[in-house]
Amino acid sequence: MAKSGSLGALVPLEIDRENPTPLHEQIAIGLREAIDKGRLLAGSRLPSTRALSRDWDVSRNTVLHVFETLVSEGLLESRVGDGTYVADRSETEADIEPGDPPVDRNAAGYPFRSLSRRGRNLIAQSHGDMSEKPLPLMPDIPDLRSFPMRSWLRLMNEVSGRLKGNILVNLTNAGYEPLREAIAHHLNLTRHLDCSADQVIITTGSQQSIDLVARLLLERGDPVWVEEPGYLGARAALAANGCTLLPVPADGDGLDVDAGLARYPAPSMIVVSPSRHYPLGGRLSTERRQALLDFSRQSGTWILEDDYDSEFFYVGGPGPAISAKDRTGRVLLIGTFSKTLLPSFRLGFIVVPQDLADGFARARSVIDRHPPIFEQLVLSEFIRRGFYAAHLRNMRKLYRERQEALVAALDSAVGYTPPAHELASGMHIILPIANGADDRALVRDLQDRGTVARPLSIYYSGRRKQSGLLLGFAAFEPDDIAATQASLSDLSRSIDRTRFRSPEPQL
Amino acid sequence: MAKSGSLGALVPLEIDRENPTPLHEQIAIGLREAIDKGRLLAGSRLPSTRALSRDWDVSRNTVLHVFETLVSEGLLESRVGDGTYVADRSETEADIEPGDPPVDRNAAGYPFRSLSRRGRNLIAQSHGDMSEKPLPLMPDIPDLRSFPMRSWLRLMNEVSGRLKGNILVNLTNAGYEPLREAIAHHLNLTRHLDCSADQVIITTGSQQSIDLVARLLLERGDPVWVEEPGYLGARAALAANGCTLLPVPADGDGLDVDAGLARYPAPSMIVVSPSRHYPLGGRLSTERRQALLDFSRQSGTWILEDDYDSEFFYVGGPGPAISAKDRTGRVLLIGTFSKTLLPSFRLGFIVVPQDLADGFARARSVIDRHPPIFEQLVLSEFIRRGFYAAHLRNMRKLYRERQEALVAALDSAVGYTPPAHELASGMHIILPIANGADDRALVRDLQDRGTVARPLSIYYSGRRKQSGLLLGFAAFEPDDIAATQASLSDLSRSIDRTRFRSPEPQL
Repeated sequence: MAKSGSLGALVPLEIDRENPTPLHEQIAIGLREAIDKGRLLAGSRLPSTRALSRDWDVSRNTVLHVFETLVSEGLLESRVGDGTYVADRSETEADIEPGDPPVDRNAAGYPFRSLSRRGRNLIAQSHGDMSEKPLPLMPDIPDLRSFPMRSWLRLMNEVSGRLKGNILVNLTNAGYEPLREAIAHHLNLTRHLDCSADQVIITTGSQQSIDLVARLLLERGDPVWVEEPGYLGARAALAANGCTLLPVPADGDGLDVDAGLARYPAPSMIVVSPSRHYPLGGRLSTERRQALLDFSRQSGTWILEDDYDSEFFYVGGPGPAISAKDRTGRVLLIGTFSKTLLPSFRLGFIVVPQDLADGFARARSVIDRHPPIFEQLVLSEFIRRGFYAAHLRNMRKLYRERQEALVAALDSAVGYTPPAHELASGMHIILPIANGADDRALVRDLQDRGTVARPLSIYYSGRRKQSGLLLGFAAFEPDDIAATQASLSDLSRSIDRTRFRSPEPQL
Repeated sequence: MAKSGSLGALVPLEIDRENPTPLHEQIAIGLREAIDKGRLLAGSRLPSTRALSRDWDVSRNTVLHVFETLVSEGLLESRVGDGTYVADRSETEADIEPGDPPVDRNAAGYPFRSLSRRGRNLIAQSHGDMSEKPLPLMPDIPDLRSFPMRSWLRLMNEVSGRLKGNILVNLTNAGYEPLREAIAHHLNLTRHLDCSADQVIITTGSQQSIDLVARLLLERGDPVWVEEPGYLGARAALAANGCTLLPVPADGDGLDVDAGLARYPAPSMIVVSPSRHYPLGGRLSTERRQALLDFSRQSGTWILEDDYDSEFFYVGGPGPAISAKDRTGRVLLIGTFSKTLLPSFRLGFIVVPQDLADGFARARSVIDRHPPIFEQLVLSEFIRRGFYAAHLRNMRKLYRERQEALVAALDSAVGYTPPAHELASGMHIILPIANGADDRALVRDLQDRGTVARPLSIYYSGRRKQSGLLLGFAAFEPDDIAATQASLSDLSRSIDRTRFRSPEPQL
């Protein structure tokens, strides 16, 4: 077992005898770096100067000189009758000896000190917990009380009898086969796809879907179009995987494909929410859909179709998915049950081109295998027996009423009427705020009065942001929505009624 | 919108007019590369020679010359009255036109052709589905019929009433707080830890735990000790994340720390299964545990303690976890409920040093948020009310009886008695096979006779492998175990009875 005598070997110093820099200086540089980078931990004991002079093939005086220098710099400390130690500069990382109580390292640089670069990058993308209380008008959450919990439980008890044998050991990593079949069937009906069950990969939701896609299809540094403004979860997962984000403006017709091609003509992937742009609410126009498909076919660019909110249309419908018209196998579609059922159930899916299906399933075996069986089993029955379609129908009706309640509240409070493309679908309305007004501050003011909103500006990554407030209506009773009117009327002076009439973000 | 006329811009060619290579040759090289790397997809139409001569600022004759060259090479193809296309060399990727049926690209190189390098690397680590039928003597699976499904369902129905409000929207990404508390309490009691609930990160199992640890703490290329032989899932997740695997031999006392330090003195992380080495079955000796802790303290090396199988001890106990003696916050412990409850429930955890807890939780928001709430809610009650501890006690008793049945069957069939360190704990026994004999072939022979085993050799990454058969006993009735005796006796000639007496793998 290596004891302190071999520490020199553990911290290999590059000593270059041809280098004009004096040896003691080279050694000092090497040790400073080893301490800075944490290869030599605070509290660890250095070998004797004798041992180090032998290890490094330098005179003992040279080592002594280096030690004195580093002690004077506060990097090392000398203890009488004991030896030389790496000093504790964090002031919380006490000299560590076996038997001491655990060290609390809530020090400067926390929590990044010991993480890898990619770990730091990953954490830097965090968009935090979503653990706020669901108060009106919090966007992005479905009505929680409408979830048919009793049907769900009844199914759960009923299908529990099937939980035996092979199914309890392990499933295929792509997910429970009957659930994949149920989803494929549902998508082929509602989204005009022509996919088979083996193209459906069950995930724990959109966040994992996007992370998985980035890990499998993109290299570090690969350029990816993201919508500006756009969904933060997608940006986070792509940036965490080292992709270069190229913000392409969106307007009332969704992603501005021409603008994207003019600015960034060679992306590796295009992330788009064509059914309903998040957060602006437009449906991607037919021309732009065709342009995306043409470009993808010509260039081989991947399209990641976030089919978010295709379920909640109140006027017209989402039309067929882009994936439905893909003939070259370059479009992947992601969907989630977080909005249509319940967020904390954590189930979603990716529909991948046939030739990627096996690869995605195999990757899962390395990353996390598959989502828990019980939820998959129940959901497959829930879809198969028509509960899911019925629930969607009920929610469409309910959400439309609630949308009307919010439209009425906004009209009374501030005299604002949202444009038609926003009202056609979705679970929130954006109240436009005059540019220059700080929508984050307005959100804080509202919060003090018991109303929850999200600032539109946070969904922009560029310097030019539009101000606005995302107001959700899906999860709240019309009376509770009406009750927010008082706090909304305070916003009257901040509103920009002109800006969203012809919805062209100036980017 | 960019049409084919702008394809020249989409495939930017580096034309260097100072370069002695003729222009037509430079263009040909650029196009060949674009086709090879998939930037120009098979079936895509090239712009006209006129357009390209303008885009590239070369004569039209030069472009024609290049086209002719590439057509003669089979990379391009000319269609009369239409234009020039990138040829389909895979012979399955037909000329693609809108309206054509979807392309089946089960071609050469599948499924790697369109994946990123890191995606290919990820998939290359796949260890496949675990969807085989659980037949005797399949190792690594718990007894499925003993799982207290009725208690589980009763709890599920009971706690479903708590599924309302905030909990349905989202949890903290680290997991459901009461479950984290229940696990911390259980580990502090049984593994002598002193951890708080906020150090416990709920994951979907060991596979995700290791992937998460690698992404957060290790850089691409970082050297990591793995046990030789050792757990394939850990190797897969580490290799998929670009780590350099350093195989360190293990013997009856677990990981040979001295051998590791002698060979690879500067790992970034050490992955070790100290309670019960996988697959050899030894418990890491006290001296080696101390040596690991000393080395970690001195060098700052991370230790990833896979606490796998600490629950199933029949003689003595696993002793305290290494994490329990960590004073420098460099040891992470991973645990799983896949072996103690059911594999397909997909729940596990990581216990991280205090100062990493927040970072791990934040990373989850980017990767997949949290495991489904329902399982977490039920499991927390299952542990809190003592069902979990009772189930472990019952299983220890049951598995011990089954182990005895397998020991008896092996004795009768081939006269082999396993060494004490293997019998002290775990869910399988290794039958040593003479080196040179192909244990994979023996596994296939056994399979033909209805008995399932795993070859020991697959758990080695180096050239020197030991042959053996992993025989599981936990999931099978004593009678079913006894019934395998006939097929086991066929192995008599292949067995190496001397090799495992003094368990020192020669590596």
